[in-house]
Amino acid sequence: MTTAKRDTYTPETLLSVAVQVFNERGYDGTSMEHLSKAAGISKSSIYHHVSGKEELLRRAVSRALDGLFGILDEEHGRVGPAADRLEHVVRRMVEVLVTELPYVTLLLRVRGNTDTERWALERRRDFDHRVAELLKAAAAEGDIRGDVEVRLATRLVFGMVNSVVEWYRPDGRGASEREVADAVVRLAFTGLRAH
Amino acid sequence: MTTAKRDTYTPETLLSVAVQVFNERGYDGTSMEHLSKAAGISKSSIYHHVSGKEELLRRAVSRALDGLFGILDEEHGRVGPAADRLEHVVRRMVEVLVTELPYVTLLLRVRGNTDTERWALERRRDFDHRVAELLKAAAAEGDIRGDVEVRLATRLVFGMVNSVVEWYRPDGRGASEREVADAVVRLAFTGLRAH
Repeated sequence: MTTAKRDTYTPETLLSVAVQVFNERGYDGTSMEHLSKAAGISKSSIYHHVSGKEELLRRAVSRALDGLFGILDEEHGRVGPAADRLEHVVRRMVEVLVTELPYVTLLLRVRGNTDTERWALERRRDFDHRVAELLKAAAAEGDIRGDVEVRLATRLVFGMVNSVVEWYRPDGRGASEREVADAVVRLAFTGLRAH
Repeated sequence: MTTAKRDTYTPETLLSVAVQVFNERGYDGTSMEHLSKAAGISKSSIYHHVSGKEELLRRAVSRALDGLFGILDEEHGRVGPAADRLEHVVRRMVEVLVTELPYVTLLLRVRGNTDTERWALERRRDFDHRVAELLKAAAAEGDIRGDVEVRLATRLVFGMVNSVVEWYRPDGRGASEREVADAVVRLAFTGLRAH
């Protein structure tokens, strides 16, 4: 007698289950069997929605990447002095990261063993490059310090922003999304020292 | 006919092979068989040096933790205004991280499935706590800004520092140890904005 529940999933809700499993077991360590068990529906029901686990990965990292690239198209990301655009982008990165926490977590853990993973890494590099260009422009405009090399500064700012996935929990007990975004922007742009 | 090479390992050199394998496969995913293959000696030869893989893990993370805790005992970590001591500690953390790269990488990936891993996580929390105390003291002395909560600031600074393990390669082609340490200290304490 099977205990599998009736398939009431949409591609969207199935995706959120899959992303949770990918983040817990790692993408490589996740089988269709694991996904089927976690969702409580049969493998063939999952194949009714998607072609397999790689499609689920692609949809999941696309959601994170769309969120991130979307920032660059926002008005404050396009118009104004480069340093202000950069500040907008950093603040919004934290917001996207927090809003899309499991999807961005998955994106940051992608390793590059499949075509989809390599594509995701490539898109991440594109995004990093766009932010580095903004930093470069801000340095050229004299608003960003010249004594830290652009590539190094970009890496360290991404390091600070991305580390939020390691400890942020949306349970309302820790710092709020707004507090985290404010803290990252303050530290990244004006540092710890009192002025 | 066996092709295993003669065991010329010391506990120290065996440790460096083990750490490399742990970082590649994950500690959970590493068996004594994997260690034996990577070292090119038999399992019983490994048991001649250590009681098993958990002892290798303990030795490896101890090396990283000793490096980090050692900073707090250095003169510049003990004497002077708290903000200056904090700056010294952050600079030295980057240096220890770069010097002991594979060992600190392993420490940062520890998850807590065994007693040794739980002990390592506990020691990491102790270290984080000691740095947070320093930040708190510096804020009380008025040298660190008061508008970012201490715990949040500590996490973000650790996020920036620890992210260095993701991309630093000691091959002499990228930024030097000194450049990375300077960049982290500048960004963490005075931020990206030109003054």
